[in-house]
Amino acid sequence: MQRRTFIKDTATYTAIGLASNGFSIGHNIFSVDKVKVGFIGVGARGNGTLELALLRKDVVVTAICDIDKDAANRGAKLVTDAGHKAPALFTDGDHSYKKLLDLKDLDVVFICTPWEWHTPMSIDAMKAGKAVACEVAGAMSIDECWQMVRTYEATLTPFMIMENVCYRRDVMAVLNMVRKDMFGEMIHLEGGYQHDLREVKFNDGINYYGGGVEFGDKGYSEAKWRTTHSVYRNGDLYPTHGIGPIGSYIHNNRGNRFEYLTSMSSKARGLHNYVTDHPKGGKDHPNAKVNFRLGDVVTTNIMTTNGETITLSHDTNLPRPYSLGFRVQGTKGLWMDVNKSLYIEGKSPAHKWELAEPYLKEYDHPLWKKYENDASGAGHGGMDWFVMNAFIEAYKRKDPMPLDVYDHASWAAITCLSEQSISQGGEPQSFPDFTDGKWMHRKPIFALNDVY
Amino acid sequence: MQRRTFIKDTATYTAIGLASNGFSIGHNIFSVDKVKVGFIGVGARGNGTLELALLRKDVVVTAICDIDKDAANRGAKLVTDAGHKAPALFTDGDHSYKKLLDLKDLDVVFICTPWEWHTPMSIDAMKAGKAVACEVAGAMSIDECWQMVRTYEATLTPFMIMENVCYRRDVMAVLNMVRKDMFGEMIHLEGGYQHDLREVKFNDGINYYGGGVEFGDKGYSEAKWRTTHSVYRNGDLYPTHGIGPIGSYIHNNRGNRFEYLTSMSSKARGLHNYVTDHPKGGKDHPNAKVNFRLGDVVTTNIMTTNGETITLSHDTNLPRPYSLGFRVQGTKGLWMDVNKSLYIEGKSPAHKWELAEPYLKEYDHPLWKKYENDASGAGHGGMDWFVMNAFIEAYKRKDPMPLDVYDHASWAAITCLSEQSISQGGEPQSFPDFTDGKWMHRKPIFALNDVY
Repeated sequence: MQRRTFIKDTATYTAIGLASNGFSIGHNIFSVDKVKVGFIGVGARGNGTLELALLRKDVVVTAICDIDKDAANRGAKLVTDAGHKAPALFTDGDHSYKKLLDLKDLDVVFICTPWEWHTPMSIDAMKAGKAVACEVAGAMSIDECWQMVRTYEATLTPFMIMENVCYRRDVMAVLNMVRKDMFGEMIHLEGGYQHDLREVKFNDGINYYGGGVEFGDKGYSEAKWRTTHSVYRNGDLYPTHGIGPIGSYIHNNRGNRFEYLTSMSSKARGLHNYVTDHPKGGKDHPNAKVNFRLGDVVTTNIMTTNGETITLSHDTNLPRPYSLGFRVQGTKGLWMDVNKSLYIEGKSPAHKWELAEPYLKEYDHPLWKKYENDASGAGHGGMDWFVMNAFIEAYKRKDPMPLDVYDHASWAAITCLSEQSISQGGEPQSFPDFTDGKWMHRKPIFALNDVY
Repeated sequence: MQRRTFIKDTATYTAIGLASNGFSIGHNIFSVDKVKVGFIGVGARGNGTLELALLRKDVVVTAICDIDKDAANRGAKLVTDAGHKAPALFTDGDHSYKKLLDLKDLDVVFICTPWEWHTPMSIDAMKAGKAVACEVAGAMSIDECWQMVRTYEATLTPFMIMENVCYRRDVMAVLNMVRKDMFGEMIHLEGGYQHDLREVKFNDGINYYGGGVEFGDKGYSEAKWRTTHSVYRNGDLYPTHGIGPIGSYIHNNRGNRFEYLTSMSSKARGLHNYVTDHPKGGKDHPNAKVNFRLGDVVTTNIMTTNGETITLSHDTNLPRPYSLGFRVQGTKGLWMDVNKSLYIEGKSPAHKWELAEPYLKEYDHPLWKKYENDASGAGHGGMDWFVMNAFIEAYKRKDPMPLDVYDHASWAAITCLSEQSISQGGEPQSFPDFTDGKWMHRKPIFALNDVY
């Protein structure tokens, strides 16, 4: 806190901040050492995150782990091409990440591995005292969520769940508007993950996306592991892009929390059809016999303790345009992203939608105003820059992580509760209170200003 | 059937049909008598329906019932102004409609009364052998739905539920597209009733809409009775505008049916805020003490036997633009009305929304193509003309009603099941099979051609 106060009071800070054309250097002047970063998993997603890390002047990548040696070497080359020392490499099987965690010359790890590895790796990292930046996913079990929480509480090693959509420009502008009470008291929210992933779930075993109907051992990249979840599981497998921003809007775990949910799954047709209709597939292809359990559209309703309802959609097997389907509705109006429109009583023409764009510009979040240039060109429209920046800056300041282990547990639990509800014919499922009652007193901390 | 075959085979029919500038006269040449119509309820809605009926050359209005004598007289004047004989009037209290039903000179009745009267009046009318055109509403109880079904089965008096949105032009074009398999196998559907009704639920006791915060005894028109349901009930009170069209898309009760639902209700703020924030209201107004139970947004998920999921929204207490929120999603693509867009694999640019308008024009339903001019100017964008036309034409032909008592029962039941689910914290509720198994064999009949 002293450092932050000092920064705020120093004219130099503002001057440097305004003059900065590249990445923020405002804080480096106060930190002696660079943050030493390790990567566990440098596949499609990890590779992109690594590239982003290498652009930062306050970060040095000292170690890389991946069971795919080619991927690890490609990552190491990125590091040396950026002019840095070659990182230590760990490629010797599923548990070689533990050796990476043994390194002394390492402050934090980015975990960008298949979903089922997030929890064991995060737990081991926290126990080893390495701060964790963990990619998003649904949980495999409720107990897994508890393990994350209890390990954090026992170790107090910083943990951040890297939900980039919380930093999407329109999402943050709307957060700004929510905080200015422009939509009134929150009533109903919607979001989800509506993304045609058929060319992610299937490929030709060589390229990242499409070109065949292979998955599992014969697939490549995400098709190698992600598709398996669509074979065996039926629920909202990927809730965080929708629920993360909504969590900020309704103060999840900070004066409010998710109380129970019900979930319903449509029939499953999309993945089977993709296999049988593909020129490299067909009715006689072995994968035409696979019983994909994941319903094409899974709809989940969540009740909060403060009485807001939330509807989440998971829709990844069918042809459709990408849409996270946000709706933020309060007593004074609502915003929807699918029609890029909003309505605010007393401002909008009566009973008519207005284009959201002018409002999103006017209420652009201070963070985006400040760092727009830094973020431009970064992944997913710039939001990847912000989520990494938040993690690194909070770490350097020893601040609480803006998206913490309680956020993670309550978001990731949706997957398991959704599976349970569906398997019980829609029965409501209660959320555990992962904060042990602390939610009643905790205050919002996410993106309160333009610091990170 | 003989008559229909004859019509189809007669060149005259086509010539007359094409030449018709006013309302359809194609069939009148075959019917000796006009259909003798009675109105029960000529308030805001009944009055509009009466005006529409008076435009038809194949209808004569012989009786009007309303407990509001002014409304009845206004209706009678409409009839005589149209050059017809003065109708018999029945205004002597809640049960005077029974005297109307005793008339011999009466074929059919339109029931446009408060929701709670639909069932007793429809039942009495069916028992009296008067064909029923009943306005839409949710049911008060599941037993009420059964009573309607059993009375119809015992009397075989024609009964049609007058769901006008089934005839909305875009809704019918999409039905046409669904039947041409352009969206593939149906997977997930959405709809609802999202309509800021605050100026319907409250008025000044003199005018139809707004101008005050009165309801019940001090309100006028719908505010007199409709608002009471928002005081005492919490559920999807008005499901038919959403579920009606969806029922056609998925062959409800004709090879498919609703199996169970779960429902969730947000907190209730909108109506209370309206009272307290209104210049004629305020915190000290007696209605500020009313506990409005109806949640501002009620979300209901329905599972069908064929595995489609349906999400319905009921959202009538908050400031918002009108939207029925349709989404029709299948294995090949989807249509949404909120962004007026669709996506069809192989036709639309990959991963991009296309404006729906050109498709809606190309696949305009044959009924709309044929009767566009007749319907223009009729209520709710013309769809009111179609729903009345369907009832009268089916009646004249002695055809089965296109939206029948089983449609009504399964739609109206949603209200009670939604209330039950909400009061049980989201517990799933099973739909009764109102067809006693006939749904397995019944075939679709709704708007299969351009006849009605």
